[in-house]
Amino acid sequence: MISKLNEKIKQKKAPIVVGLDPMLSYIPEHILKKAYAKFGRTAEAAGEAVWQYNKAIVDAVYDLTPAVKPQIAMYEQFGIAGLVAFKRTVDYCKEKGLIVIGDVKRGDIGSTSAAYAEAHLGSVDVDGEKIAGFDEDFATVNPYLGTDGIKPFIDVCNKNDRGIFILVKTSNPSSGEFQDRIVDGRPLYELVGEKVNEWGALSMDGDYSNVGAVVGATYPKMGEVLRKIMPKACILVPGYGAQGGKAADLKPYFNEDGLGAIVNSSRGIIAAYKQEKYAKFSEEHFYEASRQAVIDMIEDINSIF
Amino acid sequence: MISKLNEKIKQKKAPIVVGLDPMLSYIPEHILKKAYAKFGRTAEAAGEAVWQYNKAIVDAVYDLTPAVKPQIAMYEQFGIAGLVAFKRTVDYCKEKGLIVIGDVKRGDIGSTSAAYAEAHLGSVDVDGEKIAGFDEDFATVNPYLGTDGIKPFIDVCNKNDRGIFILVKTSNPSSGEFQDRIVDGRPLYELVGEKVNEWGALSMDGDYSNVGAVVGATYPKMGEVLRKIMPKACILVPGYGAQGGKAADLKPYFNEDGLGAIVNSSRGIIAAYKQEKYAKFSEEHFYEASRQAVIDMIEDINSIF
Repeated sequence: MISKLNEKIKQKKAPIVVGLDPMLSYIPEHILKKAYAKFGRTAEAAGEAVWQYNKAIVDAVYDLTPAVKPQIAMYEQFGIAGLVAFKRTVDYCKEKGLIVIGDVKRGDIGSTSAAYAEAHLGSVDVDGEKIAGFDEDFATVNPYLGTDGIKPFIDVCNKNDRGIFILVKTSNPSSGEFQDRIVDGRPLYELVGEKVNEWGALSMDGDYSNVGAVVGATYPKMGEVLRKIMPKACILVPGYGAQGGKAADLKPYFNEDGLGAIVNSSRGIIAAYKQEKYAKFSEEHFYEASRQAVIDMIEDINSIF
Repeated sequence: MISKLNEKIKQKKAPIVVGLDPMLSYIPEHILKKAYAKFGRTAEAAGEAVWQYNKAIVDAVYDLTPAVKPQIAMYEQFGIAGLVAFKRTVDYCKEKGLIVIGDVKRGDIGSTSAAYAEAHLGSVDVDGEKIAGFDEDFATVNPYLGTDGIKPFIDVCNKNDRGIFILVKTSNPSSGEFQDRIVDGRPLYELVGEKVNEWGALSMDGDYSNVGAVVGATYPKMGEVLRKIMPKACILVPGYGAQGGKAADLKPYFNEDGLGAIVNSSRGIIAAYKQEKYAKFSEEHFYEASRQAVIDMIEDINSIF
């Protein structure tokens, strides 16, 4: 699956991913009103609004971006109706030829991790019938439980040609509380990075591994070190834009071949119309603001090469 | 919420929790057949079978156990239909007066962690209407992202009188890969334990905190140390029974007041009918085997006091 993602990145000259993390507060009034009129003040209305919002944005940007990254928490908060909107979004993005990275940060052990992996990257056997749950192309995974938590994901990736991104160094201010603690003279995130490299060897696909890593844009020095520790891992980079990460800092996340990293922006794209810079598009045409924000982001990221 | 759980533990003299982690391979033929006849070989059939299986077990044990712990991965693998079965299970258990611990192992940062917290322990505001997602009493949470990931959960706990159990030392063989690494002369899990104690002070409820910890039954020496580091935390103990943890080893997980720990068994209870010991109940009466297994487990755990 990583070779498919790399192919699309090269084709669109865009090592970026659009984060579909809808908050009700981002969704324009006219979409909300229509959903409330149809479904009342219900979870179904929220799900419908989220779906219509996503669809308009995807329609406006699918030719520019290789991938999208829906953050499942933003859907899960509305319960079943929210997850129905998540699934519609995943399916629609795949129809549009986009690679879908499910930002689910799951992680457990043994048969439980296997169940999460099948839920998001595979299928279960129901009396001989293969039933897919959410069916993304990639999923994000938490490493705290060690190999017992990761190996079942890799098995499912190998079976179905899918991939994972393992949290190594996250973009948030308190990520250092545990991730930066010094173990044998080196920070824990480096050890996790070494494990990612080791696990990655189990699922190579072309020059890269289906086992990638998450490293926040907000820690470029650490990104530089981790790039070297995990040469075959694609690095998914959150924290660009809204969280403060700048394009100039991101060069070290990439390999010499111009690949090896994919930079995410969520709010900066999907709620672009709320920024002064894109206000001219108006709330009604929010998706045009998103399109312009994607164009600007691609130009910004490509300026580092 | 922890005081409610402690009240129920005392009332039923049972510091245990029944793990509702249904695998299709555990579910008796007659339930599966009925579900396939009604829904075909579909996710809906799997969801229906899981629900009927859970309901029979809950009906057979609800008077004995203070709590249940559905493992969401086992539902999520069937996609939306599986999560409908999860929600039905949560609601039914609450109707039966059980405390529901959603074993979801979620964890992210900022507004995303807040969304997970609202999804499982709170509600979201949809145009002035409060909409609850899955509405468990407790959720399990992953600490890898630090305070930014935990604090939003605590805020939601305080708002709605709920609780969390934070992964500290998990029961699996490879849990040591990161959790046991030595930081400043002490294993990482002790540092996480100290943080749990610190975070716990933000949500006290009687003698205990709504912020508990997960410590596997398979590492009793570490459990003893962690008990002292987190005196106010209730320890959720997986790994008893099927994973090899023995009652005799669990004494150090409890405080002098006989509280402070709740021991989980999943497969050992819900698939008890598959064990030679309980075979006499037959597959047809699998729930009676589960009831006997709960009685035996309570006796076993109480033998340590």
